[in-house]
Amino acid sequence: MSLSRALTYAQARRPRFLTELKDFVRFPTVSAQPQHAADMQRCAAWLGNHLQRIGLGQVKIIATERHPLVYASWRGALGRPTVLIYGHYDVQPPDPLREWRSPPFEPAVREQDLYGRGACDDKGQMFTHVKALESYLRATGKLPVNIKCLFEGEEEIGSSSLIRFLERNKHALLADVAVMSDMPMLAANRPALTYAMRGGLSLELEVRGPQRDLHSGIYGGAIHNPLQALCEIIAQLHDAEGRVTIPGFYTRVRRWREQERDDMARVGPRDGQILQDAGAAKAWGECGFTLYERTTTRPALTVNGIAGGYQGPGGKGVIPARALAKLSFRLVPDQDPREVDRLFRRHIARLTPPTIRAHVRTLSRAQPALVSREHPAMRAAATAYRKGFGATPAFLRSGGTIPVVNMFQSALRIPTVLMGFALPDDRMHAPNEKFHLPNFYNGIATSLWFLAAIGATKAMRAQAGAAEPEWSVAYGH
Amino acid sequence: MSLSRALTYAQARRPRFLTELKDFVRFPTVSAQPQHAADMQRCAAWLGNHLQRIGLGQVKIIATERHPLVYASWRGALGRPTVLIYGHYDVQPPDPLREWRSPPFEPAVREQDLYGRGACDDKGQMFTHVKALESYLRATGKLPVNIKCLFEGEEEIGSSSLIRFLERNKHALLADVAVMSDMPMLAANRPALTYAMRGGLSLELEVRGPQRDLHSGIYGGAIHNPLQALCEIIAQLHDAEGRVTIPGFYTRVRRWREQERDDMARVGPRDGQILQDAGAAKAWGECGFTLYERTTTRPALTVNGIAGGYQGPGGKGVIPARALAKLSFRLVPDQDPREVDRLFRRHIARLTPPTIRAHVRTLSRAQPALVSREHPAMRAAATAYRKGFGATPAFLRSGGTIPVVNMFQSALRIPTVLMGFALPDDRMHAPNEKFHLPNFYNGIATSLWFLAAIGATKAMRAQAGAAEPEWSVAYGH
Repeated sequence: MSLSRALTYAQARRPRFLTELKDFVRFPTVSAQPQHAADMQRCAAWLGNHLQRIGLGQVKIIATERHPLVYASWRGALGRPTVLIYGHYDVQPPDPLREWRSPPFEPAVREQDLYGRGACDDKGQMFTHVKALESYLRATGKLPVNIKCLFEGEEEIGSSSLIRFLERNKHALLADVAVMSDMPMLAANRPALTYAMRGGLSLELEVRGPQRDLHSGIYGGAIHNPLQALCEIIAQLHDAEGRVTIPGFYTRVRRWREQERDDMARVGPRDGQILQDAGAAKAWGECGFTLYERTTTRPALTVNGIAGGYQGPGGKGVIPARALAKLSFRLVPDQDPREVDRLFRRHIARLTPPTIRAHVRTLSRAQPALVSREHPAMRAAATAYRKGFGATPAFLRSGGTIPVVNMFQSALRIPTVLMGFALPDDRMHAPNEKFHLPNFYNGIATSLWFLAAIGATKAMRAQAGAAEPEWSVAYGH
Repeated sequence: MSLSRALTYAQARRPRFLTELKDFVRFPTVSAQPQHAADMQRCAAWLGNHLQRIGLGQVKIIATERHPLVYASWRGALGRPTVLIYGHYDVQPPDPLREWRSPPFEPAVREQDLYGRGACDDKGQMFTHVKALESYLRATGKLPVNIKCLFEGEEEIGSSSLIRFLERNKHALLADVAVMSDMPMLAANRPALTYAMRGGLSLELEVRGPQRDLHSGIYGGAIHNPLQALCEIIAQLHDAEGRVTIPGFYTRVRRWREQERDDMARVGPRDGQILQDAGAAKAWGECGFTLYERTTTRPALTVNGIAGGYQGPGGKGVIPARALAKLSFRLVPDQDPREVDRLFRRHIARLTPPTIRAHVRTLSRAQPALVSREHPAMRAAATAYRKGFGATPAFLRSGGTIPVVNMFQSALRIPTVLMGFALPDDRMHAPNEKFHLPNFYNGIATSLWFLAAIGATKAMRAQAGAAEPEWSVAYGH
């Protein structure tokens, strides 16, 4: 049987698969930082070559306004469904660097984990599918489904090139279902299928005061300090109960039935577990909701960074001329990022005292996303997890944001199976990010079972007959 | 007459004096930053050589736990008073670098100003006295008074080595009066004598939350963000009227009689002038006080810097594990920095919610200082300004802090004449710091007139007979 040959192939090649994953992690693909633009290009080229070498066709490195997309396909399964495999090869900035035990872009194995920025988010997780495709193709010469791979380099900065590309290439990307792996399971032996994600809205808030930095001895007490004013504004964005104070912010937040809340309480992580995973002593946030609810069905506003004034060693007697905060919202059905953006700007205007000026810049926006738990592909994924990890997956909501899931829904009209292989303590976005190697290997097996199960599914409309696409890469201005 | 020969000498050598000042400014003597330790050493050696070359004796570079002191003396005016000339060769950090029109340590003359970090604070101002001493010594072979020069390299970081040195060398530093130039006049044609300075207390406030940085999608809404908590604490340090909320903070603040307040209103800068100098559109702070009072007779608390989370380009979905603020108080008679430190720590403990931990570190402390306006040296200084600048000086209070003034008062029992040559728009501590060159040259003349007037003063007890000191450079632990 083809599947067992592919599984055997994968099992026997674990050391090489790990070496290749380390090569992949070694690229410092920090999409937010312009100095890494060439690294992004090199990594995309490496990935394209890799896809070609394992037997995929039509490999393309698609230039965008920023970081390239990598596309590859296999279309030999006539009459079978088409699976769109999505992933991203860009990573979060690695700072603060001094907190890493080993350098972020020198992947290192300690015990059963591979350490490195992107090891988990998302290079390691997306590579499970790449290695599953290789195993099928090399072991059996074919795949049980048609495949389109689409890997982007801007997921960590809002996916704007991919979103523009999707809008212009809906026909070429037609598929029956999308799959991506960029989210956590509950534990190494407790897989999970994510069916809901929060949306996002990322902003900068800049406060300006005097025209130049002032001596705080000469002027302290007479001039409103922009840094203090920024703190005063930020402090007013939440009330004492941890609720966001923006008028109208909660108006569209969906109230879930008790049944849904009970289901969540049954399968989801408990408060104690979330606190332990976070390394936090105490909970915080909206009364009347579990921590699982606060991080999934409830929206949140986070200050991601503040920069202002003197930050070096010792002190400096200065009133800085300006101060900057980076803020991000996580949004839930049926909030709309554009509406929240408007409400936020109006609220900031109200909170800004006449002694300073405040400016808001929008960095990115993403709708919240929901996928039906009854879709045949979700059932196929559940089967695959049972085979790959030996356990039935829980159905989970995630607090994170993947803008492309919503785009697949709205532009391609397909659901996305969110098949996570990360662990809660994998430190995605933080120093010492890691990927648990048993999850890498079980993830490859799960992907193989998933492809086989989709191939055997009758209920999906087959798209495989469509002609090889002509890409549109013109951009709006 | 000796004085007129010295004045003529100084007048004729302006170009060389400027060249030497530029050499002095070129040393990047940022005392707060460990990477500049060698620059501090080099600058101290340069200064010592310079003092020797102009004719002073007993030149010593005195090693301390941190940056060296430079001492020199001249003791040939038997029976005449001894003047202790104080200055500092260290400077504030130059950041933000991108806002400088020319590099901070490449002094540049534009119109009538010399631009560079330290050009005004304090290299240019202290250099007026050095060049006055040279002019007297070279033109006449002697000085009208005995001189002790004491220049330090830690003024911008709290003067702790100098303070320890003073405590151990009171006898060796005996003098009748100290003089220093490190403060502004009202305008280029409106000199001022500063008779009061605020004290200081510089602190770091660190807030810690989860053990590591967290993904704000996964945990946003359930974990108290240290950066937000820091903002919430800082926002509570002032009330809506701009008053510091620390219980007991104002208890010891001296109430001045209406006479004193009227005098201040008459000679001091008006609100509009202070706002214009600051480049600020609106005033802020305690009701019931002019801006001049708010910055001199009233205490203040300033947030000098905040660092936390992601500060690079674009966004990063992170809840940082910790956040840090740098804060400084300006204190007035009869506040005590140690007591305010205790009150602050108690207040922070009260404001800290159970969801995070706050830590306070004290960086430096200084008492407020007051000098009698009736002291003969103050009268000599007033005469000197009339001659050097052609205008009678105003008696001013300053909002700044010079810990050593209080030390001269308490350890040496001498008053300090605060003879400022800076202009309100010289941008001390800010980018594009400058020194107005007419003030440099008039300052040299003023210093010459001051030395002559002190030499002619009968009312001062003469200390010149004391033997040349043996320095004690042992340090407490």
